[in-house]
Amino acid sequence: MKIRVDVKLKNGVLDPQGRAVAHALHTLGFDEVADVRIGKAIELEVNETDKEKAKARAVEMAQKLLANLVIESYTVEVLG
Amino acid sequence: MKIRVDVKLKNGVLDPQGRAVAHALHTLGFDEVADVRIGKAIELEVNETDKEKAKARAVEMAQKLLANLVIESYTVEVLG
Repeated sequence: MKIRVDVKLKNGVLDPQGRAVAHALHTLGFDEVADVRIGKAIELEVNETDKEKAKARAVEMAQKLLANLVIESYTVEVLG
Repeated sequence: MKIRVDVKLKNGVLDPQGRAVAHALHTLGFDEVADVRIGKAIELEVNETDKEKAKARAVEMAQKLLANLVIESYTVEVLG
């Protein structure tokens, strides 16, 4: 079963990587870019057939390891 | 307008960061994890009202800067 965990910085948390990319885009002439935020798209392949159980475990993984809950938020989606 | 560009490593390209996360998850007892791949979820805020035009420009950004097309693939989605 495939699960996707998206981890992104909370609003208000400075994103230096996003700033750098925004600056580079401006340099390349993409002046319409107002802001860039860069998060992680984590794809997990798990040996689990129960969808609900797989999702609950992924939430646990996000809370324990994948996301830093002080500055990041996460969403979990079962891709099937 | 908000646009999301997902950049991930092509199949077959080694993902050391994903490997490290998989290893850490095993250490924490998440033995059901078979594989982990980590990509970038880039959110762009652009000053553009035309949806089609915004998407076309984002594709251009992905090809010119956001993705390394040798080893990465990308998808562009207009979030509105």
